[in-house]
Amino acid sequence: MDDSDLRRGSPSCHRAFDEATAILAGDALIPLAFEQLARAYQGSSSLGLELVGLLAVAAGSQKLVGGQMEDLLAEGKSPEVETLSYVHANKTAAMIETSLLMGFCLSENGGNIELRSLVSQAGQSLGLAFQAVDDLLDVTSTTEELGKEAAHDQDTEKMTWVRMLGVKQANELAREHTEQALRMIEKIGGDNYFLLKLAEHMLRRTN
Amino acid sequence: MDDSDLRRGSPSCHRAFDEATAILAGDALIPLAFEQLARAYQGSSSLGLELVGLLAVAAGSQKLVGGQMEDLLAEGKSPEVETLSYVHANKTAAMIETSLLMGFCLSENGGNIELRSLVSQAGQSLGLAFQAVDDLLDVTSTTEELGKEAAHDQDTEKMTWVRMLGVKQANELAREHTEQALRMIEKIGGDNYFLLKLAEHMLRRTN
Repeated sequence: MDDSDLRRGSPSCHRAFDEATAILAGDALIPLAFEQLARAYQGSSSLGLELVGLLAVAAGSQKLVGGQMEDLLAEGKSPEVETLSYVHANKTAAMIETSLLMGFCLSENGGNIELRSLVSQAGQSLGLAFQAVDDLLDVTSTTEELGKEAAHDQDTEKMTWVRMLGVKQANELAREHTEQALRMIEKIGGDNYFLLKLAEHMLRRTN
Repeated sequence: MDDSDLRRGSPSCHRAFDEATAILAGDALIPLAFEQLARAYQGSSSLGLELVGLLAVAAGSQKLVGGQMEDLLAEGKSPEVETLSYVHANKTAAMIETSLLMGFCLSENGGNIELRSLVSQAGQSLGLAFQAVDDLLDVTSTTEELGKEAAHDQDTEKMTWVRMLGVKQANELAREHTEQALRMIEKIGGDNYFLLKLAEHMLRRTN
């Protein structure tokens, strides 16, 4: 088995089964998320439908899928800052941002536009920090530590911050995005202990 | 280009572009449906969330995806009536049934359980008729007429009613399901002219 087919130390779905099964698993998991929302929020359908809308946009052609498509198109090409920023903002950060936003919608302040914008910014920064750390771990960690193939991005000529800026500047970028996220989370206030710890942990993580 | 890569006379997505693009297009179209529902029903969110739930179940692992998976697993094996019935009921008929149900939910009778059950049965029968006709067209039509490769099911040893029962009995099956659908649509009553014509057309279609 090729190391690139590992996730968290286990064979990825397309390797454990086959490609058709993996594609269908993905095709089944997407509607499952919406089914869960439709079931869970029958009693507060306005909130439920808002969550459906947020998740659908984040998972769709403008965000997650659009970012993944640009990422594929960029493989093997000379990296451009604008493209890489688009990919990271949409493929990675949009879903992390949306996870925070969906949780925020459930809070008693869910309707507060100002707080919502801060949550959104915190999620984007957290996502960009996560991706910068991911790019770094690909070159600074081992396959055993990562649970997926180390140096995979390098080998596939994937566009990453490390490849574009080098380890030192990519490290700087991860730190900046984390600090920006921490500032936003402080501003949001309330019971933000978990989010603060999460942001700090995400910068220090080794897998 | 292989004829099996034609749909409605045009190259299918994975052929016109590539497999990764086709997979991502699918991954983007699924959330797009839920995004549209979330947008369109902001003003009547209870209805909107019900539609989300219906569509999500139909597109998920128990219906569309489950049926497609069983279909893949059955390729090249000796066909069994139970498996083929499962595949057709879930891969094809469930989505046609759900299309009818979603429309029904929008009507003033949308809450009527008895009518709803009739709509559901009409949709199932319509779907099973559609699939029986599809199996027949694969052997009785040409690639030009179909817009996709004729005899494709035969060549890939796909499990079909024609392969299992022969043309004559598959024809009989298509007719029975259509008649059952027509009976249900008559029973539903109301402004059912379009549905009656659609059911009749689906039996006579040549592509």
